[in-house]
Amino acid sequence: MSGFLNSWNDGEAKRAIIDFVSRVSDGNGPDFVPKVDRIATFDNDGTLWCEQPIQVQLFFAFDRLAEMAKADPSLKDRPPFKAFLERDLAAIKALGKEGAFRFVLTTHSGETPENFDRLSHAWLASAQHPKLRRRFIDNVYLPQLELLDFLRAHEFTVFIVTGGGGDFVRSVSEEIYGIPRHQVIGSSVKTRFEIDEGRADMVKLAELGSFDDREVKPANIHLHIGRRPILAFGNSDGDLAMLRYTKSSSYPSLALLLHHDDAEREYAYDGNFALSPLVEALDRAHEYGLTVVSMERDWNRIFGDQPG
Amino acid sequence: MSGFLNSWNDGEAKRAIIDFVSRVSDGNGPDFVPKVDRIATFDNDGTLWCEQPIQVQLFFAFDRLAEMAKADPSLKDRPPFKAFLERDLAAIKALGKEGAFRFVLTTHSGETPENFDRLSHAWLASAQHPKLRRRFIDNVYLPQLELLDFLRAHEFTVFIVTGGGGDFVRSVSEEIYGIPRHQVIGSSVKTRFEIDEGRADMVKLAELGSFDDREVKPANIHLHIGRRPILAFGNSDGDLAMLRYTKSSSYPSLALLLHHDDAEREYAYDGNFALSPLVEALDRAHEYGLTVVSMERDWNRIFGDQPG
Repeated sequence: MSGFLNSWNDGEAKRAIIDFVSRVSDGNGPDFVPKVDRIATFDNDGTLWCEQPIQVQLFFAFDRLAEMAKADPSLKDRPPFKAFLERDLAAIKALGKEGAFRFVLTTHSGETPENFDRLSHAWLASAQHPKLRRRFIDNVYLPQLELLDFLRAHEFTVFIVTGGGGDFVRSVSEEIYGIPRHQVIGSSVKTRFEIDEGRADMVKLAELGSFDDREVKPANIHLHIGRRPILAFGNSDGDLAMLRYTKSSSYPSLALLLHHDDAEREYAYDGNFALSPLVEALDRAHEYGLTVVSMERDWNRIFGDQPG
Repeated sequence: MSGFLNSWNDGEAKRAIIDFVSRVSDGNGPDFVPKVDRIATFDNDGTLWCEQPIQVQLFFAFDRLAEMAKADPSLKDRPPFKAFLERDLAAIKALGKEGAFRFVLTTHSGETPENFDRLSHAWLASAQHPKLRRRFIDNVYLPQLELLDFLRAHEFTVFIVTGGGGDFVRSVSEEIYGIPRHQVIGSSVKTRFEIDEGRADMVKLAELGSFDDREVKPANIHLHIGRRPILAFGNSDGDLAMLRYTKSSSYPSLALLLHHDDAEREYAYDGNFALSPLVEALDRAHEYGLTVVSMERDWNRIFGDQPG
């Protein structure tokens, strides 16, 4: 196993991962799981990349909505546009995660997916995190990139299951995670098929299709994957249904919960501090069979550009 | 290219396929398409396997509903149960494709996906086609299996996009097509997340989620794949939106339409004969840039167990 998981400290979490992956991929062992059933699902915000002080896509919305307000200044006084244009984090958090995302996702109506993809990709290629002073896409967690590689080396198929917009994450998923777009499941808006002068396109509508959080995560996992995961990784109560669904597999399974307890190198938060609360999943981790990963204790590096 | 597409006769369709696939996978040519964008989508009923006299899943429903009627005899007189229990094809066709599938898909409410999968797989492993005298799953078209192999050899990622139930097709998609479950997009019902004595499961509901036909096909392609196909294959007006969406790619693209014109070896039908009408797609194939594949002229074998 050398060469894998180098940013993970020896400890319960790393041992649980290595033990689990070894057991399910050992064709001669009693816990073997056929390759096609080796499905792993990862939350994105706060699990694969930093979600503080608010989710990356909400920063994207700041810039998109500012563009829209140039064309239509009347938006400036209309809530919740106003909160976003003024980057009023308290007002945005007061909307709740679903409220904030519902608003943001439906502001792209009229765009084709291809045009949205260009906007999203161009923004992510350059936009910087205000505190950590690197690009948002450089705020992916190195230990998680190593875990994705470790799982793929053991012939897992890895999916992202995010409360954020699926199209937003897809615009960089191959580049930053090596995860193909069709293995990204996220929140979505409805679309309309249009034919204009013989050319057929999809167009985004201002109506939410699915807000991929809490009980909707396992529903979308079934809809998109058609198999129950045997490994899942999350960091909030929004991931709890997915984690418990995974732990109820008839195969051996592993459900991991990242605890952000590292104020020095990243952020320290739980409870209701963030837009994605972490209360029940942490309090009842033992009862639900979740393996808690401490950012402070279990990871010796967090970001790729930090020294080890 | 020898060893590929042996069941395809030399002709316009085979030449169009070979020419297209060669061009988009030639890294030095002007029509090169990166691997990640080599997405192919296939309809299932009537495109990959036989859909006559009615779709395979409706035969499955005959047997499932007979089981249900044993437990509740009052169903026998209730439409549309009655039509299915009496195998009254005319009455079923009168429901229309969406009506028939909506009814069938919503009769599995209360089942977990895992239990449905066992029922569906067990039935498909043995159930026989009434006229062709082989199992339904042996009614897959050999030339199409060769085409799937040809595309995969050129690093296409292949998806099924079916009006039938996604879960029904998934129960055999790996076995008969080599297509992973998460690359099967189909009609679906809504599901509910349930926890019972600490065990988390999904349960199918009696409410349609998506009927994956006509304009819904490109919408679901966007939702599940996040990329526009460059090759699509269908056989009815229900596939036309997907075919035109594909032909409107900014890359070179190929849209194929199978015409069932072989009464001797399979069936001959178009117009409104089948539950899936074929009118506009055939009449306007040239205008829309569709390549029509004639079962009679273009395929020298149809099923794997027939002599060449």
